Amino acid sequence: MPGSVYGNIFKIVTWGESHGAGIGVVVDGCPAGLFLDESMIQPYLDRRKPGQTPYTTPRKEEDKVILQSGIFEGRTTGSPISMAIYNENQHSKDYSRIANYYRPGHADYTFDQKYGFRDYRGGGRSSGRETIGRVAAGAIACSILSELGIQVHAYTRSIGPISVPEENLSLEQAKLSPLYMPDRDASKKAEAYLLDRKKEKNSAGGIVECIVQGMPAGIGEPVFDKLDAVLAKAVMSIGAVKGVEIGDGFLAATKTGIENNDDFYYDSKGNIKKSSNHAGGITGGISDGSTILLRAAIKPTPSISSTQHTVNKNKENIEIEIGGRHDPVIVPRAVVVVESMVAITLVDYLFMGMTSRMDRIKDFYHKKDK
Amino acid sequence: MPGSVYGNIFKIVTWGESHGAGIGVVVDGCPAGLFLDESMIQPYLDRRKPGQTPYTTPRKEEDKVILQSGIFEGRTTGSPISMAIYNENQHSKDYSRIANYYRPGHADYTFDQKYGFRDYRGGGRSSGRETIGRVAAGAIACSILSELGIQVHAYTRSIGPISVPEENLSLEQAKLSPLYMPDRDASKKAEAYLLDRKKEKNSAGGIVECIVQGMPAGIGEPVFDKLDAVLAKAVMSIGAVKGVEIGDGFLAATKTGIENNDDFYYDSKGNIKKSSNHAGGITGGISDGSTILLRAAIKPTPSISSTQHTVNKNKENIEIEIGGRHDPVIVPRAVVVVESMVAITLVDYLFMGMTSRMDRIKDFYHKKDK
Amino acid sequence: MPGSVYGNIFKIVTWGESHGAGIGVVVDGCPAGLFLDESMIQPYLDRRKPGQTPYTTPRKEEDKVILQSGIFEGRTTGSPISMAIYNENQHSKDYSRIANYYRPGHADYTFDQKYGFRDYRGGGRSSGRETIGRVAAGAIACSILSELGIQVHAYTRSIGPISVPEENLSLEQAKLSPLYMPDRDASKKAEAYLLDRKKEKNSAGGIVECIVQGMPAGIGEPVFDKLDAVLAKAVMSIGAVKGVEIGDGFLAATKTGIENNDDFYYDSKGNIKKSSNHAGGITGGISDGSTILLRAAIKPTPSISSTQHTVNKNKENIEIEIGGRHDPVIVPRAVVVVESMVAITLVDYLFMGMTSRMDRIKDFYHKKDK
Amino acid sequence: MPGSVYGNIFKIVTWGESHGAGIGVVVDGCPAGLFLDESMIQPYLDRRKPGQTPYTTPRKEEDKVILQSGIFEGRTTGSPISMAIYNENQHSKDYSRIANYYRPGHADYTFDQKYGFRDYRGGGRSSGRETIGRVAAGAIACSILSELGIQVHAYTRSIGPISVPEENLSLEQAKLSPLYMPDRDASKKAEAYLLDRKKEKNSAGGIVECIVQGMPAGIGEPVFDKLDAVLAKAVMSIGAVKGVEIGDGFLAATKTGIENNDDFYYDSKGNIKKSSNHAGGITGGISDGSTILLRAAIKPTPSISSTQHTVNKNKENIEIEIGGRHDPVIVPRAVVVVESMVAITLVDYLFMGMTSRMDRIKDFYHKKDK
Repeated sequence: MPGSVYGNIFKIVTWGESHGAGIGVVVDGCPAGLFLDESMIQPYLDRRKPGQTPYTTPRKEEDKVILQSGIFEGRTTGSPISMAIYNENQHSKDYSRIANYYRPGHADYTFDQKYGFRDYRGGGRSSGRETIGRVAAGAIACSILSELGIQVHAYTRSIGPISVPEENLSLEQAKLSPLYMPDRDASKKAEAYLLDRKKEKNSAGGIVECIVQGMPAGIGEPVFDKLDAVLAKAVMSIGAVKGVEIGDGFLAATKTGIENNDDFYYDSKGNIKKSSNHAGGITGGISDGSTILLRAAIKPTPSISSTQHTVNKNKENIEIEIGGRHDPVIVPRAVVVVESMVAITLVDYLFMGMTSRMDRIKDFYHKKDK
Repeated sequence: MPGSVYGNIFKIVTWGESHGAGIGVVVDGCPAGLFLDESMIQPYLDRRKPGQTPYTTPRKEEDKVILQSGIFEGRTTGSPISMAIYNENQHSKDYSRIANYYRPGHADYTFDQKYGFRDYRGGGRSSGRETIGRVAAGAIACSILSELGIQVHAYTRSIGPISVPEENLSLEQAKLSPLYMPDRDASKKAEAYLLDRKKEKNSAGGIVECIVQGMPAGIGEPVFDKLDAVLAKAVMSIGAVKGVEIGDGFLAATKTGIENNDDFYYDSKGNIKKSSNHAGGITGGISDGSTILLRAAIKPTPSISSTQHTVNKNKENIEIEIGGRHDPVIVPRAVVVVESMVAITLVDYLFMGMTSRMDRIKDFYHKKDK
Repeated sequence: MPGSVYGNIFKIVTWGESHGAGIGVVVDGCPAGLFLDESMIQPYLDRRKPGQTPYTTPRKEEDKVILQSGIFEGRTTGSPISMAIYNENQHSKDYSRIANYYRPGHADYTFDQKYGFRDYRGGGRSSGRETIGRVAAGAIACSILSELGIQVHAYTRSIGPISVPEENLSLEQAKLSPLYMPDRDASKKAEAYLLDRKKEKNSAGGIVECIVQGMPAGIGEPVFDKLDAVLAKAVMSIGAVKGVEIGDGFLAATKTGIENNDDFYYDSKGNIKKSSNHAGGITGGISDGSTILLRAAIKPTPSISSTQHTVNKNKENIEIEIGGRHDPVIVPRAVVVVESMVAITLVDYLFMGMTSRMDRIKDFYHKKDK
Repeated sequence: MPGSVYGNIFKIVTWGESHGAGIGVVVDGCPAGLFLDESMIQPYLDRRKPGQTPYTTPRKEEDKVILQSGIFEGRTTGSPISMAIYNENQHSKDYSRIANYYRPGHADYTFDQKYGFRDYRGGGRSSGRETIGRVAAGAIACSILSELGIQVHAYTRSIGPISVPEENLSLEQAKLSPLYMPDRDASKKAEAYLLDRKKEKNSAGGIVECIVQGMPAGIGEPVFDKLDAVLAKAVMSIGAVKGVEIGDGFLAATKTGIENNDDFYYDSKGNIKKSSNHAGGITGGISDGSTILLRAAIKPTPSISSTQHTVNKNKENIEIEIGGRHDPVIVPRAVVVVESMVAITLVDYLFMGMTSRMDRIKDFYHKKDK
């Protein structure tokens, strides 16, 4: 409840600050018997690593994960899995100037209001580096989902005003784009747009879209823990996210019932299917077996080097220019964070979904006895 | 975790189905000493009651709340507050036909997938009547907030394509509109739009907006329990909500950092203020002392009397026309539900916010001793 | 967390006071498909009902349970099950005198310290009547356990100084004893002992013992949620319980390792067995497949009609004699409460135990698909 | 819920195995502004460190704590505090033999039943080394309690048959005894007793007693989260604990109401006091302002070098002699673990206790505004 613990059965706890000793995460509730080593986690961290393109901060951070517990002979034991990513480069010189003022769009002011003082070095706990722990845990969640035949894919749906049209969307292209944009043309335009923003000492936002394939029907807990509600929380808890929608989302608010309802039909194999998926794979808070689709609106990076107005602790109105090496857009680096939060949440609710029916529980415990 | 329990310190549990004995809620964690009786709760329930305008279902339901525990001599005792609203009219005839098929846009199919069978009468647990318990608890939460100088106001921002322009928005007008729309002109247009949809056996969606005034800075728990994240979950857990945004929300994704950052300044009294509120009152997941603003996208009512295609349990593709008395739009009735979920969540996090600083904890316990 | 919510996946919430409208419980997380009606719950409530022997209070309370939700066509639906037991007899005259003073051994003083005032009628929320909700939920838990081949039996192991010798213990006799004592001779002695205490306006305590048969090995979560730890909490949360022990309990503290270790061996069928059960069926916080055994120490009823010294709110030291109809011992009525709390806890941890191994999770979801 | 996360508002998460990379703990919910560095934590770890007397294992472990996050300029920031204690000596040779059989009294068998396989090196996660994380967190909890004027003291009340008489009990003596026994004579006798057990390749158990001074009245949540119930869970979750009692505990079960009730009186300053403390400082699950007293029964160390009978995985009944360097008694090393678990739990419930009264909440938020 104090904020850094997440999940019910599959639980994660993150720790660490931008300029402290490092960042870490403990995963409690990972089932025993999953094959796991650092080589399965590192690629996820590499996807959020900075310094790889002109569109992210040129800071170099290796972000090497170290597995510290919960693994024996290459498999998870069911005990907590502790992972640490130590900070290599803790020089805090660049940040000493910001100790005394509040950066617009950042959490400096609200942290001071809540805690009375703050670790001002690089944003401290409110830094984007906090998401490293989520991604390391997300890699484990994705591995569990994969065992169950479920795939989570996130990508950049738009950057500023440039959006990928539905018909162009290609998951293959997303892997080739430096912005994880699933459309070559849109990506090129967005790259140009970002270089322009960079030149004017400005920044951009965008939309991350995430789809989940292979999800069984019947997952999600009605009323308060609806699957869409817990996914909304999961994604909105990522620093810069300002909106979340499922399926048609805000567009649904402008449509009529005739347009928005997804009809059911039996396919040739006698399986129930839907003729459309405006609902985004979730009805009544429970997965319906079709593709889950959600979107997260990400605000423009608040760190910009243009002149801004703000206040300092000496009761003065001042002008600032934030120096340092910042991301002109964080959307591409947020892609794997969205994917991670979705995967962690799905694992938790898949586990919870095992106790909804008495016949299946009986079957589970009888089977086990044999 | 099985879904009908909500909150951490201020906790609510709802029960009941559309056509069962009734609907109820237990509130655990309400502080002692709050003046409370049924007359403070009933007006909230009356706001979501059907049958009051041509724009909601003509079903008559009195929805009278009965307080069953946790009150002594007119004040809360700190013990759980149980409230029940008994169903007057449990005739299930209208619903027997739907036992065998799945209504598009409803949770019939997903409940069957999860639980193996379902209470098909009026949607059972997935009926909108489930929100009665939320609203009864929300009335208590609003009363607590009011003691702390905090006001929550929700209203209809749009119906289908008709939206209230920022400049026309008047909380006074919202109270006069049968659609809780804060603009007389927009309300009239929306009323006409809804009558048209009704005539074509169709339905409409819309957007509920909610503002919170008087909220102190420093509330919300960083990382996973950010105030915007928990509000997103709270609101997305309401049946028909498909999207949630805070402040500028999805619009922020299209803007630049220069446009989106809220500058700070000292006002003439030496208080820190922001020159704009694109953030919607929350930065880094913590309230900043300005107005909190959120928006919920509500899908069109799935119950429509036009012909629809679906499946039955006899493995047949069929056509249906859903009879009965349905809401052509649920947005106006959802307004008080959004308000309730926001209020319940704020109380929970205000309570949690009391332990963030050692000096205040010491002060609390020293004071108490005297 | 505010105290009246219990459990993780199988969750219960109780409400109600001794002299309010009634007592109730909501069970959230009961799997769908369990056959359930009031006739399965009432016998449990009847076991804790007062007025049945000279050894319990002569107050007459019918304590009829009403099922209000979560059941459809005779089976649980997976939705919350609300049960209410309305108080028939709310005349508060007998209690008006105690409004102004603190009864020794009762929670009057501590409730006032915590909440600032209290519902003083019959102990309000701290009354033993609060356990009615636990027993109603316990009946459901026992029904689930029974489906899984698990039986929970509690009985009175001792009353005051009179204890049942190990060699005499008979579950059949417990059913015949008005004190639920599993030994005819001990029961007779204890009955005489209690009549003597009653005559001297005094009261007695005792020990409830509980055994669980048929429990599968492997249940319980290591470290903080060890099965013995959560059972200890479950049982210690019952009003008058002052101590809990598992297996040999406090006796183990006086023994040596050679005496206390339970050796393993293969029985003739090749199953692993233990040659003794000093551990009480739990090692390392996880069930080992043998009988679980725990004991709860119950203090003497604090309500006695002898003269006692205490204080009133007028800053006076006073003498009181508590009138009214009290239990000379609550042990026999606590038996079914212990059984209920153990059953509720076991169901919760059996459900949790379904996610400890990846192979079983895969098997569960693959099976389900077919 | 998967077992390694503890607490509600003041939350801890432990990780690590006996022969893995190390042991660690993350504390989430520590208020900002507490002075904290490694020198405040190390003394607690040193108290449970082995190799200091003939009565504990001669293994040398330095157990140096490293603070990794949540501290800035010598004070806590309100962010998670990560602490790691790396294992120096991970040679696993001694343990390879136990991979194939189940040690009596250990969790080898139950871990295999739960997880399918286990980290058999030194007990893995079920090793007593797991408690290092609890003690590091306990040091922080004690520091918070100290700021609030609350002191927790645990000591060895008995070893095997040798018990400290009430009248001899001296907290000063406990510090001087190698067994943390608060009585010089009893300590000498217990030391001799232990050397005898050691000679016969045997081990001993005992009782740890814990008192809490300065605790305010009104702490604890009625019904399921009674203060005694949560303390029972806290203490019973320590590996070898088989019983817990509060105040007179099991003795109360043999007494009468007249003997057991604690009378109230006004002292000369007009404060309410109790003339005795049979209740151990808690009534109705809420602290009453007097000394809290609890006792934990600790079983004899299961690792003994005498011949024992057990089974191996080849379906054979075998005889074993457990070599290695074991504690003949773990009671003295458990003292600081009991103290830690009590302290952590008290902090959590003190924090929860801040929201029980509306007037205090209003006062808190109004004060804050000024």
